[in-house]
Amino acid sequence: MDQPRGVSFNNADARTYSVVPNTSFISIKDESRELMAVWPDIVRDLTDAGRHLDIPDVTKWLMKVLQYNVPCGGKNRALTVVEAYKSLSPPNQITEENLRLTRILGWCTELLQAFLLMVDDIQDHSEMRRNQPCWYLYNDIGLTAINDALMLEMCIYQLLKKHFKTKECYVNLLEQFLSVSLKTEMGQCLDLLSTNFGKKPNLDLFTMDRYNSIVKYKTGYYTFVLPATAAMSFAGITDPEMYRQAKTILLEMGHLFQVKDDYLDCYGSIEDIGKTGTDIAEGKCSWLIVVALQRATPEQKKIFEECYGQSDVEKVNRVKQLYQELGISNTYAIYEEETYNLLHTHIQQISRGLPHDLFLKLLNRTCRKIGRKD
Amino acid sequence: MDQPRGVSFNNADARTYSVVPNTSFISIKDESRELMAVWPDIVRDLTDAGRHLDIPDVTKWLMKVLQYNVPCGGKNRALTVVEAYKSLSPPNQITEENLRLTRILGWCTELLQAFLLMVDDIQDHSEMRRNQPCWYLYNDIGLTAINDALMLEMCIYQLLKKHFKTKECYVNLLEQFLSVSLKTEMGQCLDLLSTNFGKKPNLDLFTMDRYNSIVKYKTGYYTFVLPATAAMSFAGITDPEMYRQAKTILLEMGHLFQVKDDYLDCYGSIEDIGKTGTDIAEGKCSWLIVVALQRATPEQKKIFEECYGQSDVEKVNRVKQLYQELGISNTYAIYEEETYNLLHTHIQQISRGLPHDLFLKLLNRTCRKIGRKD
Repeated sequence: MDQPRGVSFNNADARTYSVVPNTSFISIKDESRELMAVWPDIVRDLTDAGRHLDIPDVTKWLMKVLQYNVPCGGKNRALTVVEAYKSLSPPNQITEENLRLTRILGWCTELLQAFLLMVDDIQDHSEMRRNQPCWYLYNDIGLTAINDALMLEMCIYQLLKKHFKTKECYVNLLEQFLSVSLKTEMGQCLDLLSTNFGKKPNLDLFTMDRYNSIVKYKTGYYTFVLPATAAMSFAGITDPEMYRQAKTILLEMGHLFQVKDDYLDCYGSIEDIGKTGTDIAEGKCSWLIVVALQRATPEQKKIFEECYGQSDVEKVNRVKQLYQELGISNTYAIYEEETYNLLHTHIQQISRGLPHDLFLKLLNRTCRKIGRKD
Repeated sequence: MDQPRGVSFNNADARTYSVVPNTSFISIKDESRELMAVWPDIVRDLTDAGRHLDIPDVTKWLMKVLQYNVPCGGKNRALTVVEAYKSLSPPNQITEENLRLTRILGWCTELLQAFLLMVDDIQDHSEMRRNQPCWYLYNDIGLTAINDALMLEMCIYQLLKKHFKTKECYVNLLEQFLSVSLKTEMGQCLDLLSTNFGKKPNLDLFTMDRYNSIVKYKTGYYTFVLPATAAMSFAGITDPEMYRQAKTILLEMGHLFQVKDDYLDCYGSIEDIGKTGTDIAEGKCSWLIVVALQRATPEQKKIFEECYGQSDVEKVNRVKQLYQELGISNTYAIYEEETYNLLHTHIQQISRGLPHDLFLKLLNRTCRKIGRKD
């Protein structure tokens, strides 16, 4: 259930992608298992009865919130943390204990992800997530799910304090998580401003420039930059130029990743993505609508104005039909291939001692195949 | 608008309260003005265009969120930070620059408060806050207000980083804000579990023990412990015993403060508290219902079961009528007076070099008169 599932689509030539040996998929499975082996300790750390003896109901509840919302995703971010640490750390530092800490750091990125998704789902009126009902819909929890999400957010810092306080990277890690959280929320804000707070979106705002900004802030930082730079910090890297170069590549990767996510929101099946797409009904500034608007005739644009951002199924289907008429699916396949190749080239241009292999592996795992994404 | 307004009630003898000279009220007004003088710099720090050049719409929006939600409260927490610092810091350290930093720290506690209130109001379906519509109801912002609240939360850490990173207390401050946020959310969770997630509350859960736990976590830590201990950290205090003693007294004060808040939710006028009370309709585990249940006959308890936690005005009024029959208002007045006196005694028993004056001042300002609270 947690592994990406392949989805075939037009025009993408799998042969152009065979840069990293496929054996990497085996190690992902193994690493995913290693991460799961640490998970019970994470839950114990966070719900240790000794710490909140007088409110056992809350620790019991928190345990439920953690189990339902955190471990069942693809663990892309946690995997990135571990891959990055293994690749960047001096070999003599890669001890069992440090790997354990790296996995805990990985779970911190997954907690951030769980928190953000829980809130997003409430704001976007989503119904499914990771093949199960969204938490706020589970047992009629409703808006009190917001508070559950907030607890998960703060769990990050409890874990960092417990396990990293004595490490040199501690303050850096705190600052990275905090500053990336704000950036993500700013991206979410730009996204919400673009949809006019869930009311009728103003399609004139849906430019590629705006789309790029939304993606950079809303997805790129927490999905790619944070996992990699947190690992860099823990690996003892301090050179700012290395962080700068990593960030540039990672934000590019985040862009491709989000475009794929937008594509799947419309074209992926519920089995592929673990949820039903809501971008069209919610009037989201998605890559598909931005590209479609770039090539729509005035008549087609008028139809978009009438139908985009409405929950009515007929109107959603009308938008999908227009996408088809405009050949958006094909454009996506070409875009994906070209961007993948471009990223490949950019990775090979990294000059500051960052291992190209790491970024190629990351690119391959997260952006290669259209698959389940969380 | 920001000053507490007196409300008269039964049985409270004002003469028992005249411990701290009333001149303290003058300095509160002055300090409130000093805090407001720093506010524009806070907004500038947080929305500095240079930092997020590519998303000017978001910084403009953030400015609105800040202005609407942060500066218009009673600033109780910020005042506590400043009072505590002035009282605890060695005189030669009380420079203009350090006072400015103290006020910034005060605004950090106000940002935390604003974030928590915005989320609470959404979860409690509140309509008014600080004499204006709740943010989520303003211009139909709706659930996207959650994200606005999250941005304010993260602004705290931007300010701490900008102004305290080079100070010895930096990590302590980060940890205090983070850990108190989690505690508050755990208190909120216990509160929500008690109301059965906004569905019919189970009144058997409404014991005084449970009430005490809710108040400690949901109110005491962020309203009293955090402002005082943040100031202690900045003043350079490191003795753990001083923190322990302060915390004990501050949590007691938080309890009295919350009981008063519960009282006002039912008996305060909208002018007094800047909002309409929702505790009865929302089925909250309030001090009033807990005390009422302690003395209700089986028949009266049955009426509570039928009417408590329902938005129907008739039922809310029936609960209020029962409160009157049970003499809850009078019990409150006696409780307030006794607790005030007890706290007074406890403060005088503080042994570890913490200035009694500070705590008496704090008690007097926050718990003395029934007045507007935010």
